[in-house]
Amino acid sequence: MFDVYAFATPNSIKVLIALEELGLDYKLHGINVRKGEQKAPDFVALNPNAKVPVLVDGDLVLTESAAILVYLVEKAGGLLPASGEERARAFEQLFFHASGLSPAFGQSGFFQRSAAEPQPIAIERFSNEAKRTVGILDGVLARRPFVAGDAFTIADIAHFGWLWRREFALVDLDNAPNVSRWYDDMAARPAVQRAIARINTLVPAA
Amino acid sequence: MFDVYAFATPNSIKVLIALEELGLDYKLHGINVRKGEQKAPDFVALNPNAKVPVLVDGDLVLTESAAILVYLVEKAGGLLPASGEERARAFEQLFFHASGLSPAFGQSGFFQRSAAEPQPIAIERFSNEAKRTVGILDGVLARRPFVAGDAFTIADIAHFGWLWRREFALVDLDNAPNVSRWYDDMAARPAVQRAIARINTLVPAA
Repeated sequence: MFDVYAFATPNSIKVLIALEELGLDYKLHGINVRKGEQKAPDFVALNPNAKVPVLVDGDLVLTESAAILVYLVEKAGGLLPASGEERARAFEQLFFHASGLSPAFGQSGFFQRSAAEPQPIAIERFSNEAKRTVGILDGVLARRPFVAGDAFTIADIAHFGWLWRREFALVDLDNAPNVSRWYDDMAARPAVQRAIARINTLVPAA
Repeated sequence: MFDVYAFATPNSIKVLIALEELGLDYKLHGINVRKGEQKAPDFVALNPNAKVPVLVDGDLVLTESAAILVYLVEKAGGLLPASGEERARAFEQLFFHASGLSPAFGQSGFFQRSAAEPQPIAIERFSNEAKRTVGILDGVLARRPFVAGDAFTIADIAHFGWLWRREFALVDLDNAPNVSRWYDDMAARPAVQRAIARINTLVPAA
């Protein structure tokens, strides 16, 4: 039994999808980031970086959503090719998501929605970068059914996080037909639907 | 023999350090990003994301510096624990670097040095985040000699990239004694010194 500290965020959903795809049991603990609960002392003791998600497995307390994905598949098996080009591509896409698409989406949303004053150069920089990274991903998915090749992997799970929350970043898929096809396939997976239903229980009714 | 397309950048140096640490032969190809060579058609054909570094190993063309690190150690052995907590911590730190410290340093440098007009909220946001991530890393290194535990791993190599180029981000280590100690240890490694000497040959004399 794993313990997962999470909220309905792009990074948290990845962990629930992986757990559901792998058929692993977990207890879900809500950390309401809209109320700043990730900065409470009890949570910072768990993750000094003050971010969800966190996975607890016995004595191991693990942060960073993509590192949690790697840990889970190495423990349970599956969803990451054991060798060869598709393994290299899975890590390539995990890191392209972590260092490229994810920060671009996050900053695009922040500067368009949350900044106290307009910062026009920052808005242009990050909204362009969010669109550019979607274009790169669209090129990848024009050549392959899944982001790392012929098989569904944790790299698909990683990319799904921010694509699921793309409205926050004011990104659409109108010019990304391959990402759009892939997104629909992902959203139709029963494990993805179970993960979304479960994580949405953490969001209090308005 | 590997081919490496690179320049004297935070992400490129990681690949050279790993190759030098592992004792692997490579041919180095300079892509002068100050002149925009990463956007030339020949290079974009190699990496549609228009970024260095790129590793070519026979038919495999691989991008994303951290994915290249994983690929190299899985091919050559070493520098990544095979199992257990230190393996989980190595991936945790690889992804903390990719998604946290690295984007903060990059954007801090851009908005303080390169933006066409001052963007005060962006400057504050990213310079604070760069300092905050160094503080998180300092906490990690207060508890362990290397970022993932008792052994030197590719996660140390990843973090070294931006710490080596911290002046671009206007970051110092005055309040990070543990990072400072670790940085000096890293910089003293013969393989790190060889990598820096070799990558600096790519920078034309002013």
